[in-house]
Amino acid sequence: MAKKNKDDYSIADALRVPSGPVRVEDFDPDSAPDYPGEGKADAPAQMADLAPELSDLQERLYAAGRDNPRSRRLLLLLQGLDTSGKGGVIRHAVGMVDPQGIDLTAFKVPTAEERSHHYLWRIRRALPGPGMIGIFDRSHYEDVLVVRVDELAPLDEIPKRFDEINRFEAELADQGVTLIKCFLNVSRDEQKDRLLERLENPEKHWKYNPGDVDVRKKWSAYMDAYSDVLTHCNTEHAPWFVIPADKKWYRNWAVARLMVEHLRAMDLQWPEADFDVDTEIARVQTS
Amino acid sequence: MAKKNKDDYSIADALRVPSGPVRVEDFDPDSAPDYPGEGKADAPAQMADLAPELSDLQERLYAAGRDNPRSRRLLLLLQGLDTSGKGGVIRHAVGMVDPQGIDLTAFKVPTAEERSHHYLWRIRRALPGPGMIGIFDRSHYEDVLVVRVDELAPLDEIPKRFDEINRFEAELADQGVTLIKCFLNVSRDEQKDRLLERLENPEKHWKYNPGDVDVRKKWSAYMDAYSDVLTHCNTEHAPWFVIPADKKWYRNWAVARLMVEHLRAMDLQWPEADFDVDTEIARVQTS
Repeated sequence: MAKKNKDDYSIADALRVPSGPVRVEDFDPDSAPDYPGEGKADAPAQMADLAPELSDLQERLYAAGRDNPRSRRLLLLLQGLDTSGKGGVIRHAVGMVDPQGIDLTAFKVPTAEERSHHYLWRIRRALPGPGMIGIFDRSHYEDVLVVRVDELAPLDEIPKRFDEINRFEAELADQGVTLIKCFLNVSRDEQKDRLLERLENPEKHWKYNPGDVDVRKKWSAYMDAYSDVLTHCNTEHAPWFVIPADKKWYRNWAVARLMVEHLRAMDLQWPEADFDVDTEIARVQTS
Repeated sequence: MAKKNKDDYSIADALRVPSGPVRVEDFDPDSAPDYPGEGKADAPAQMADLAPELSDLQERLYAAGRDNPRSRRLLLLLQGLDTSGKGGVIRHAVGMVDPQGIDLTAFKVPTAEERSHHYLWRIRRALPGPGMIGIFDRSHYEDVLVVRVDELAPLDEIPKRFDEINRFEAELADQGVTLIKCFLNVSRDEQKDRLLERLENPEKHWKYNPGDVDVRKKWSAYMDAYSDVLTHCNTEHAPWFVIPADKKWYRNWAVARLMVEHLRAMDLQWPEADFDVDTEIARVQTS
């Protein structure tokens, strides 16, 4: 395959969930849409190709945020079942970005304090500041996923929460937050292989939790819950992207590329000097 | 120069401040002690050489911290004048590490709330959790540096603070925090060049602040203040390292290498499984 020009395709178009009812099963976890290289072998080179532009764009975003509390920000939201690779994406794709521009939050089982508030309370507190790239490892979607599957709230709450989440995300868009919502779509077979890999390698035992198998047994309930999320919370201002996640190298590249495309679309300019440049040059030279 | 074996030297030994009275002027900002390569040209390769071990060690630290609130942690503390490269070190050396294992705090001019507390209050709140690598971009040392130079507190407070800081850092060491205190030592001439570079490149104007020249005019007061810090707060459990910072490539490499050496010394082991591995393999296989 000939190497594509970096500007003649949009991974966002390729991975965006179409509007209307969808099912997770409609998406192929093992595909690699719009990948510009050959495959796994050249994935490090493809990632390296994205790095300078991602770095430049992130620095422009950061610079713009320094003196402007109303400036743009990016929020990458990662959802997916165990072993789908939320951690891998953070390590390999987010890891390409200057740590000073990253604001990472991993949402765990809510604490007692968090449970005493509305479920969006802890989310609002973790929103990225001006110029920052926020990363959500899990998110408010847990409140319509695990909460629904394990019936941690009355089930008739779920459709209300979909509406509430859509309003919340519209509000974020209004405030200058560009949201990239990624569902990392791993297949049931691949999940099994990855769990076994963790068990067979003593250096990976710490990543394994017996509870992962209990969750795995609820696979079809999770597919139903994710299908409803992808159907009901897939809006114009905050669309979902389904990232094929059986190929780790594609998954990482696709998320990095999504960040590049969304940052490009912001048309970020370097801030202008709020001082007289020649005066300052003279001051430094005589100092 | 023949490439050194990675285990036959210690950058920590080479850069550690000797005990007793020292002056910043005793240290050469343009040197490159123990650098195993040729110079700037092979610096990317030297950084890449450190990356796999740094990554492995960080993951071991993180794994150990998952189930043990008393486990080890690392705290890299960066001090230095404007343009000495605190941001560059974070971008290039800290940026080599998985963002999930990094807890970065940039200490700015204290807020009203921070000023209403003891100066160590905001420092304690920002300490890294178990298994994490904390990064302090500036620190409690500002409270004996800018506070002294600009007389923001009575000057007889400063020696008291030295004692207090030494006790605080001894307490951290007792709690399992390995502290790496780095003074990024840039020369006065190199600072001038870097400030001019920021002024001459419109993409770097946002990094320039006219106040930087005002601080530059107090150069010798800062050298006195840093000399006293390196003399009085250079303890067995929390020594200072002076990082020659005129060569950016050396500065970044040296800090990355310091992290590797300190993590190596922790002798970090992968946590043992707290479940029966064979039972879990069977559960996954039939799930």
